[in-house]
Amino acid sequence: MASDNVSSNSAKAIRSSSVWRRYLPFLTWLPSYQRQDAVGDLLAGVIVAIMLIPQSMAYAMLAGLPPQAGLYASIVPLALYGLFGTSRTLAVGPVAMVSLLAATGLSQLAAPGEPAYIALALVLALLVGVMQFAMGVVRLGFLVNFLSHPVLSGFTSAAALVIAASQLKHLLGLKLSDTPSFFALMDQVIRQSPASNGIALALGLASIALLIYVRGPLDRQLSRRGVPGTLRTPMTKAGPLVVVGLSILLVWGFQLDHSAGIKIVGDIPTGLPPLTLPVIEWPSVSALLPTALTISLVGFMESISVAKSLASRRRQKVDANQELIALGLANLGAAATGGYPVTGGFSRSMVNFTTGANTGLASIITAGLVALTVLFLTPWLYYLPQATLAAIIIVAVASLIDVGALQRAWRYDKTDAASLVLTFGAVLAFGIETGIGVGVASALAFYLWRTTRPHMAIVGRVGESEHFRNVLRHEVTTIPHVLAIRMDESLYFANAYALEDVLTEAVADHPGVRHVVLICSAVNAIDSSALETLVHLIEDLRAAHVEFYLAEVKGPVMDRLQQAGFVDRLGKERIFLSTHQALQALGASSDAASTVNR
Amino acid sequence: MASDNVSSNSAKAIRSSSVWRRYLPFLTWLPSYQRQDAVGDLLAGVIVAIMLIPQSMAYAMLAGLPPQAGLYASIVPLALYGLFGTSRTLAVGPVAMVSLLAATGLSQLAAPGEPAYIALALVLALLVGVMQFAMGVVRLGFLVNFLSHPVLSGFTSAAALVIAASQLKHLLGLKLSDTPSFFALMDQVIRQSPASNGIALALGLASIALLIYVRGPLDRQLSRRGVPGTLRTPMTKAGPLVVVGLSILLVWGFQLDHSAGIKIVGDIPTGLPPLTLPVIEWPSVSALLPTALTISLVGFMESISVAKSLASRRRQKVDANQELIALGLANLGAAATGGYPVTGGFSRSMVNFTTGANTGLASIITAGLVALTVLFLTPWLYYLPQATLAAIIIVAVASLIDVGALQRAWRYDKTDAASLVLTFGAVLAFGIETGIGVGVASALAFYLWRTTRPHMAIVGRVGESEHFRNVLRHEVTTIPHVLAIRMDESLYFANAYALEDVLTEAVADHPGVRHVVLICSAVNAIDSSALETLVHLIEDLRAAHVEFYLAEVKGPVMDRLQQAGFVDRLGKERIFLSTHQALQALGASSDAASTVNR
Repeated sequence: MASDNVSSNSAKAIRSSSVWRRYLPFLTWLPSYQRQDAVGDLLAGVIVAIMLIPQSMAYAMLAGLPPQAGLYASIVPLALYGLFGTSRTLAVGPVAMVSLLAATGLSQLAAPGEPAYIALALVLALLVGVMQFAMGVVRLGFLVNFLSHPVLSGFTSAAALVIAASQLKHLLGLKLSDTPSFFALMDQVIRQSPASNGIALALGLASIALLIYVRGPLDRQLSRRGVPGTLRTPMTKAGPLVVVGLSILLVWGFQLDHSAGIKIVGDIPTGLPPLTLPVIEWPSVSALLPTALTISLVGFMESISVAKSLASRRRQKVDANQELIALGLANLGAAATGGYPVTGGFSRSMVNFTTGANTGLASIITAGLVALTVLFLTPWLYYLPQATLAAIIIVAVASLIDVGALQRAWRYDKTDAASLVLTFGAVLAFGIETGIGVGVASALAFYLWRTTRPHMAIVGRVGESEHFRNVLRHEVTTIPHVLAIRMDESLYFANAYALEDVLTEAVADHPGVRHVVLICSAVNAIDSSALETLVHLIEDLRAAHVEFYLAEVKGPVMDRLQQAGFVDRLGKERIFLSTHQALQALGASSDAASTVNR
Repeated sequence: MASDNVSSNSAKAIRSSSVWRRYLPFLTWLPSYQRQDAVGDLLAGVIVAIMLIPQSMAYAMLAGLPPQAGLYASIVPLALYGLFGTSRTLAVGPVAMVSLLAATGLSQLAAPGEPAYIALALVLALLVGVMQFAMGVVRLGFLVNFLSHPVLSGFTSAAALVIAASQLKHLLGLKLSDTPSFFALMDQVIRQSPASNGIALALGLASIALLIYVRGPLDRQLSRRGVPGTLRTPMTKAGPLVVVGLSILLVWGFQLDHSAGIKIVGDIPTGLPPLTLPVIEWPSVSALLPTALTISLVGFMESISVAKSLASRRRQKVDANQELIALGLANLGAAATGGYPVTGGFSRSMVNFTTGANTGLASIITAGLVALTVLFLTPWLYYLPQATLAAIIIVAVASLIDVGALQRAWRYDKTDAASLVLTFGAVLAFGIETGIGVGVASALAFYLWRTTRPHMAIVGRVGESEHFRNVLRHEVTTIPHVLAIRMDESLYFANAYALEDVLTEAVADHPGVRHVVLICSAVNAIDSSALETLVHLIEDLRAAHVEFYLAEVKGPVMDRLQQAGFVDRLGKERIFLSTHQALQALGASSDAASTVNR
């Protein structure tokens, strides 16, 4: 008894410690932190900060917010994720997709850049935080599975195009009106392109060229000259920072903001992020709810897929529900410190991973460096041209456009390809949020459509075995007066008619048949509508002197049939455990049976 | 060669004659019409006409149309269906549900009874006709399967309540404003009931009492006294006609229309239906499209379920697509002759069947009698009180309320019961059209929901057989280091995570397991998202020194896996035709295999 109590207490202790570890993942690495982890964390933290500082300002611009909103969103949220996230290498912060979604939602309620708009961005971050946190607590992490790969792929490619297109106005120095349609936007760009600012365009294109050079050819050249990876990565990943530095120098040196009308970032307040309290007013909250829901799901989806893919490379695990909680906390942090919605992004996470991040400390180091930036370095960013930020965004999202995905989807399944194309087209034509809705609906509709046209196979015995396979695909033997048909789908209201059609036709095609055995090994459910159809079908067959049997009915289905009185009605002796038993019984005593039944 | 040609020509002739018979079903009975069929057809035709004349006027009133619209809709459409329909006993014409749907749709565009309203009813009939005809031609008859039994049942019961409630204003002699909500309507009725017309109410209640007496107790009394069915049926089915006659006499005798403010039918034009040309204007057409679609589907559903059930009792067949064509022609006929949308109804079809209708000629006889009525008898209907028509409708729809359906659905499947209740509630709260949309969506959502939580079973060998069943349900033997799991659902994006969870957990629960066999006998498809999950899962298991195998993969699924390169990646030797073969191979050479794989 005493020892039982002890062991049960220690079991409790273990369980409660595992609960703590589940909700406070930093307990798994902080108490046992090793000095050898620190090297990787420090390097990764610094390099991600170098990428993040220009990117966060660029994405803030994409979201219609002042640059400091991006920087503020890159401090507290990162530290919170570092402590509460289950991925040790995910880099959280402003990302392109969420920024665009935020811009779409917010610009319906206020003009970009205005104080009301900035205040609504805090409300949006708060809503996303609450939603993600709540979804994590009630374990809705699985919901993200409703975004199928083809839908996500079509969505990502189209969103990348929409994001790149949204930056053309900065690149060309044009003023364009907002539109959710990619095509309408491109139409505007083409018609107004004669009014472009040539200097802005030159600056933007030069930035793009430099960014592409640094990320591709330079990396290869350095590699060929034997520069080790630990040195090469900081050099190539600093590309955006170099471009930012050079373009600031150019604009400042030639005073291009005055002489050529180049739009610059301007004043960024110096100092740590302010503590902000989102103003909760029901009309704006309810107007932002759909956007918040989309960001919660899409942001989580982007984040979890990166986190999972990185974790699996190091045989680590991420917990979808705890990830939601951590992202929720990060967004609540963004709402409280002048930021806007954040999530885990692809490119910075990859860099964090490859430069050796071992724990959440890397994220905390990044956050510290961004904090130092807003404390001391913002005056240096005054002359940063918007065209350069646009160039950074365009280069970042260009890699998201995946043309091969369509080809792969097409090869595997035409309906996968169709839902990819539908999502892609809907995002371009109607905008991000409608597009993803169309995508999810189309994927579900295609799935349902397939279930309404079930595959059915007439089967025969493989050799002398107890195994039965499709007569069209395998060398099998059949019994002339017995038709064994395998139904390859659950039976429900939308496909019951198909069962009726196929069975009736199969019996008509085999006039000698006296017995039909429906093999239910792949029938995972029979709903009441389908059951009614089945009852009618059995009556029809009996009228045509054909007897009906079932084989390999699964346990859960059998329970239902029993409850509904179907088993008593059909007769227990007409339901066989296996196809083998059914065909043995019917093959032997067929004539007697058919005579009796007449 | 020559004889080949001859036989091929005669085959062609047979085929073309069968095509003619398919699209012109009267060719199957008219050329070979027997005198003995005529007796049944004549009796059925007369009795249905006796029912139809008061009912058609009542349903026209329900649809917000003058009584002649109901009579006109009972002439040409019936004759057309009689010729083109595949059911020999279906009685087409105005029915309650379609009349209510028409009223809901039309009253959004014009005030009931006004010329514009009557003109729009023709447009609606035209649209329904075109839609049904087109759906039949492109063979969309299967679409109706998306209305599951529970949804249809909840819908029918709620619609019956809504229809009965809509007649309370006639019964009570009140003026109520239109509302799609049953609850709002009842609220109005209760609040205004003090202003009821007592005479109208007395007339209505007396009509209801008489109708119930004739249909129930009288029938039983006559039966007890030995009155034969052929005499009893005309007597009991003439109930509505008797009620109509008595109430006309009463109103005329006491001049109740003036002395007591009883609303009467009034002037009905004498003469055959006018030829009418619906006026096609895009705004009204587009506004009527949703209503037309709902009527097309709901009307077809009501009609085909009656037709199928009657046909199966006489071992006849109905063709869903030809039924659509015939109903489409009937509605086009209604549009061209001053009617409104029609379909095959339950009660008159039952009477048609039981009184002995043998062919479509019965319908044509009914049509002829209604034509004689509008030619000669309409002046006699002047004093017919609306309260009596309301009573006829209420008694007719009361039998549609099926309380037992909920209990049956609950017993069979909780989600069936849930979608029944949801549909019922949505029809009452938001009206007929929204309600049916909610119903279909909920049924599909429940189906999808179930597929996201697939049943999975660890299986073992049944005795010495080659058959494997769930270890929790059957006496089976298992091999300790081999885990055979049967997945009872197709794998797709929305349930791939569940496979991952269950398999990972099962392996964790069985620490001695070296081999996992996934039995795919119930996996009818694997989409690209699920395949990717599977690939990751296999890698994870391999990292934990557990090898993965597939068994009983179906042909169509195997083709896909091959195309996607999955088969080569997993290794062909890891895919077994049967569970038996898999367990024989793994049970024998397990230690060697697991050593090799480490």
